[in-house]
Amino acid sequence: MSLINLPLKKNQQFDVKYYFDGIQNKDLTILSKAITLLESIKAEHQLIAEELIELCLPFSGNSLRIGTTGVPGVGKSTFIEAFGKFLIETEHKKIAVLAIDPSSTKSKGSILGDKTRMNFLSTSPNAFVRPSPSAGTLGGVAKATRESIILCEAFGFDTIIIETVGVGQSETEVNSMVDFFLLLMLAGAGDELQGIKRGIMEMADAIVINKTDIENANRVKLAQQHYINALHLFPANENGWIPKVESCSAINTSGIPAVWKIITQYKEQTYNNGCFDKKRKQQAKYWLSETINSSVLAMFYNNPTIKLLLQKIEKDVVDGKTSPFKAAKILLDHYKK
Amino acid sequence: MSLINLPLKKNQQFDVKYYFDGIQNKDLTILSKAITLLESIKAEHQLIAEELIELCLPFSGNSLRIGTTGVPGVGKSTFIEAFGKFLIETEHKKIAVLAIDPSSTKSKGSILGDKTRMNFLSTSPNAFVRPSPSAGTLGGVAKATRESIILCEAFGFDTIIIETVGVGQSETEVNSMVDFFLLLMLAGAGDELQGIKRGIMEMADAIVINKTDIENANRVKLAQQHYINALHLFPANENGWIPKVESCSAINTSGIPAVWKIITQYKEQTYNNGCFDKKRKQQAKYWLSETINSSVLAMFYNNPTIKLLLQKIEKDVVDGKTSPFKAAKILLDHYKK
Repeated sequence: MSLINLPLKKNQQFDVKYYFDGIQNKDLTILSKAITLLESIKAEHQLIAEELIELCLPFSGNSLRIGTTGVPGVGKSTFIEAFGKFLIETEHKKIAVLAIDPSSTKSKGSILGDKTRMNFLSTSPNAFVRPSPSAGTLGGVAKATRESIILCEAFGFDTIIIETVGVGQSETEVNSMVDFFLLLMLAGAGDELQGIKRGIMEMADAIVINKTDIENANRVKLAQQHYINALHLFPANENGWIPKVESCSAINTSGIPAVWKIITQYKEQTYNNGCFDKKRKQQAKYWLSETINSSVLAMFYNNPTIKLLLQKIEKDVVDGKTSPFKAAKILLDHYKK
Repeated sequence: MSLINLPLKKNQQFDVKYYFDGIQNKDLTILSKAITLLESIKAEHQLIAEELIELCLPFSGNSLRIGTTGVPGVGKSTFIEAFGKFLIETEHKKIAVLAIDPSSTKSKGSILGDKTRMNFLSTSPNAFVRPSPSAGTLGGVAKATRESIILCEAFGFDTIIIETVGVGQSETEVNSMVDFFLLLMLAGAGDELQGIKRGIMEMADAIVINKTDIENANRVKLAQQHYINALHLFPANENGWIPKVESCSAINTSGIPAVWKIITQYKEQTYNNGCFDKKRKQQAKYWLSETINSSVLAMFYNNPTIKLLLQKIEKDVVDGKTSPFKAAKILLDHYKK
């Protein structure tokens, strides 16, 4: 593949080779800059980003991608800190943590607060913690995150943890980019009260009850049984995996190795029955069709004639002067011209 | 509006005037034929159907549209029979019953079985029972049903009941074409066990526990309390309506007037606060955008160049040779040419 060698411009000081070499030479600063490039909405940045993704693609795919979610207060950051520390120190892993927080509008997002709870990971040479992209729609954030995975894998991270907030629709997006989906819960509250949507529980490959250090042991046991029962009500997974329920304390790190054991079991089982690879392929197809659909629709709605006509016709439809089906046909006929 | 006066062809013996006059003259046979026309996928039928809809539109909108759902065995048909009979005999209403059963592939659908349980409605001059359209995708069925509502209203039916099976995704479609959504349940089984998806309960304006004739009264009370509690966990409705829970027996007709009372209360309340009209306008917008989106995407995917290219490019994406985002861009670039 040929490298684009664009002349330097004011806001675009580096070419794709700069980023690609940096990633291959394991330069964390350049990786970070490259992700910033992915998140940029400027056309010239997008061009370089696209080329960079294609260059990194052959070096990607060799990590285990883990999604974690849970409502605010469940202890996601402290869990990831403890879990990541365990993986680095005991399993000799290299961890990248990417966060999605669509509710965050501030630059660098709410994970700045998180970073203070990820002291070890923030300073370890074997970890990379990336705040939530601040700009754009959820679709844009998800796209940037999925592309960041590719860069992180090409860099050499073998475990990617995607963190999300467990209350919005971002979980579906995350579930479509990870191999394993982990739901953090607290003991003693019904799932409705914890603000977790039923659909999210259905996605979980494991539910982990956090904060056993401060929770009554009986309540933890009860909650575990509650979730085991609840998971039984869902239809069986196509890959044959029965979601597990575990408990842990991110503070005193008890239960953390057990969580890792579940994930390695899952990996082994789905590797052996071919479902690991199958899921990745389905995810690639999903992203392809999602991207096509949103682009095709954007092309239509951004058409100046359509924009004008739609305003008028939408009013006619709302006022009951034209049926939605006839109106859509009129618009399509104009578009075809 | 001018009437199309197409020459008679073999499979298309009538022009739009024939159907429109028939509907205005309250000819049930012609109404039935007109709905068959809506369901046809032939282009010449679709042309007449479209014109017919536009002609009927000014005479539509004056009915109360009620959606009913529930799993097979909950007694939907017997409920609708008892409820419709009550409305005709006591409230002097004119009832049209339209059914959506996306699982039905046979011609005339499963409601043929239903019709035998709707003896009164099937033979009453003040009622019209229409089986589920048999052909096409769910989207097509939903489109035909929504258009059928317009014809039935132009005909003079003041109460339209849309029946659906409560297990698929058709409920979202139905919910987007009715004023009031009624969920039938049985006492004594958790909602999961009844196969009702949580999302469907969230849509319900009322939950009615059927078959009180054969159920233990205590169990019915318990179930009512269970559903009242469950409904409280959902966020409040924008229109201020608090979903009600009622019980009835479609066999001995106890509770049927109470269900009607709930619906009239709902109508009054939402009429007065403007939400009845607002919801209809939102529904029209929803159908407009749904129809536009599916047409725009169909146009893209049916393009012969795209079809060919997509096959190849999808393989590249699945094999990890190209990223989904780059692939989508290539397709779009070709499409623009």
